[in-house]
Amino acid sequence: MSVDENAFKAALAATAVHIEALLDGLLTPEPMTGETARPEILLAAMQHGALGGGKRLRPFLLVESARLCGVDTDAAHLAGAALELVHCYSLVHDDLPAMDNDDLRRGRPTVHKVYDDGMAILAGDALLTLAFDVMARPQVHSDASVRLDLVLGLARASGLGGMAGGQALDLAAEGRYTADKAPLALSEAHIRQLQAMKTGALLLFAVEAGGILGRAPAATRQALAAYGRAIGAAFQIADDILDIEADTATLGKSAGKDVEQGKGTLVALLGLDAAKAERDRLARNALESLGAFGPEADLLRATARFIVQRGH
Amino acid sequence: MSVDENAFKAALAATAVHIEALLDGLLTPEPMTGETARPEILLAAMQHGALGGGKRLRPFLLVESARLCGVDTDAAHLAGAALELVHCYSLVHDDLPAMDNDDLRRGRPTVHKVYDDGMAILAGDALLTLAFDVMARPQVHSDASVRLDLVLGLARASGLGGMAGGQALDLAAEGRYTADKAPLALSEAHIRQLQAMKTGALLLFAVEAGGILGRAPAATRQALAAYGRAIGAAFQIADDILDIEADTATLGKSAGKDVEQGKGTLVALLGLDAAKAERDRLARNALESLGAFGPEADLLRATARFIVQRGH
Repeated sequence: MSVDENAFKAALAATAVHIEALLDGLLTPEPMTGETARPEILLAAMQHGALGGGKRLRPFLLVESARLCGVDTDAAHLAGAALELVHCYSLVHDDLPAMDNDDLRRGRPTVHKVYDDGMAILAGDALLTLAFDVMARPQVHSDASVRLDLVLGLARASGLGGMAGGQALDLAAEGRYTADKAPLALSEAHIRQLQAMKTGALLLFAVEAGGILGRAPAATRQALAAYGRAIGAAFQIADDILDIEADTATLGKSAGKDVEQGKGTLVALLGLDAAKAERDRLARNALESLGAFGPEADLLRATARFIVQRGH
Repeated sequence: MSVDENAFKAALAATAVHIEALLDGLLTPEPMTGETARPEILLAAMQHGALGGGKRLRPFLLVESARLCGVDTDAAHLAGAALELVHCYSLVHDDLPAMDNDDLRRGRPTVHKVYDDGMAILAGDALLTLAFDVMARPQVHSDASVRLDLVLGLARASGLGGMAGGQALDLAAEGRYTADKAPLALSEAHIRQLQAMKTGALLLFAVEAGGILGRAPAATRQALAAYGRAIGAAFQIADDILDIEADTATLGKSAGKDVEQGKGTLVALLGLDAAKAERDRLARNALESLGAFGPEADLLRATARFIVQRGH
């Protein structure tokens, strides 16, 4: 493994700069063909939700998986920007008082704190809609059927059977929809499924999208999917550990909210030590999944290590 | 014009039955390829928002425009179901307390009244996501580039530069984002643009989608677009008139809310009589736009008359 932490962070930051520029270009006042006008206030709310921060981890995973499959990085970056729009929409909606009720995101006030809940709902809606718009554009891939596979994959990872479904399970776990309103006692299997949907599905799709863009053979796609599933699960456990161990300033969002909201996490169920061991086991799984690749997969390997070690 | 009101209503109802069956089939508990699982509570909230009512006017427009362009109706119905999912999502979100705050829709409690605001936000998100999923499926059209045109058209009609943008302008018109919170005095041009986006864009896309599915020549597409723009504008004025003249029981949603919320409408600006005259002028425009077609456009003609005359 020839990529050290500094080289990894430099690569991650370089992709983030590229994605930020693409998102900035997508969120301009000029309407596209088929649009009537772009209202200033909604555009500003979308910009607040999508620009100016974020590690852009999902685009990085997409771009590096695509590179592994021999794909031109400009196209992969645009697909990554589409994917990041879905991630940004989910943060804007999850932060709402009706959901996780967070005032702070990436060290700044959340969209509904700057505007109001109604405009934040619309900003999320429009970011999600824009994601599919971007993924369907010819610049993503010259072959229309490849773009359709990306649109379908993105939709399934994001909707009822993926991220939105996972967030619904999370809200239900708080006990909102039971008579006594007490948090549900979830089994380990239930928590793992919830997390595979809420966080895992989009991370998994990020690496699958690389394989779709590169029309990779089945063995490569299976290896990437195993890697994606492992880092997705490790990521959520690491996130839950951070929620307990980090403070709000380091995290850039409110710390300790999971425990406060009675969320079912593996940390709560297994204890901190066992959760850390599971996170590390999953990271090793991720590395093993990439066993067939050479140094061209080193940045993906470094990503798995980063997910385990990150401080925020 | 050989289609009388009863024949029109029978055709509209027949399409509604077909669309209801398609939506019911799309909202089943079995996960699709690429989905992890379909959580019962989110599925139920989506079903509440999408099934059991609605005139299904947008799918009807799509199906009839497609028929005019020589398209197999099974495929057009599925595209219509995708479009209807976007309409349903917009109703679920618009009814939220943070938006238009409505407790009643189609004579039933709104999604957030049955569940809560968080689950209603997620249900809308997942309905929107499913719309793009469905529109991208091979059953909509054998040619991938046609499906991509539909995905792109749907996204642009629905997002920042279309429906969501129009709803943002509507919220802004209430004065929410100004220091004194007083409703804005909108010009006629401003109201027309707001309505062209909020309601018109999706109705316009409905007829454009028929032309895309049928790969219709430019003259046909232009005629359909002129028709779509005219009925879209007429529809919103008719809606605003109904909000004043109808009672809540007839409307199936709360009446008189526009005036209460200080919404800028052409009725408020021009007065009831002038608004009715404008609605009728737009309906005549819609009929004139179809001048090049024979009896095969009679159901579209009847739709324009229905929009003007409907009681709810």
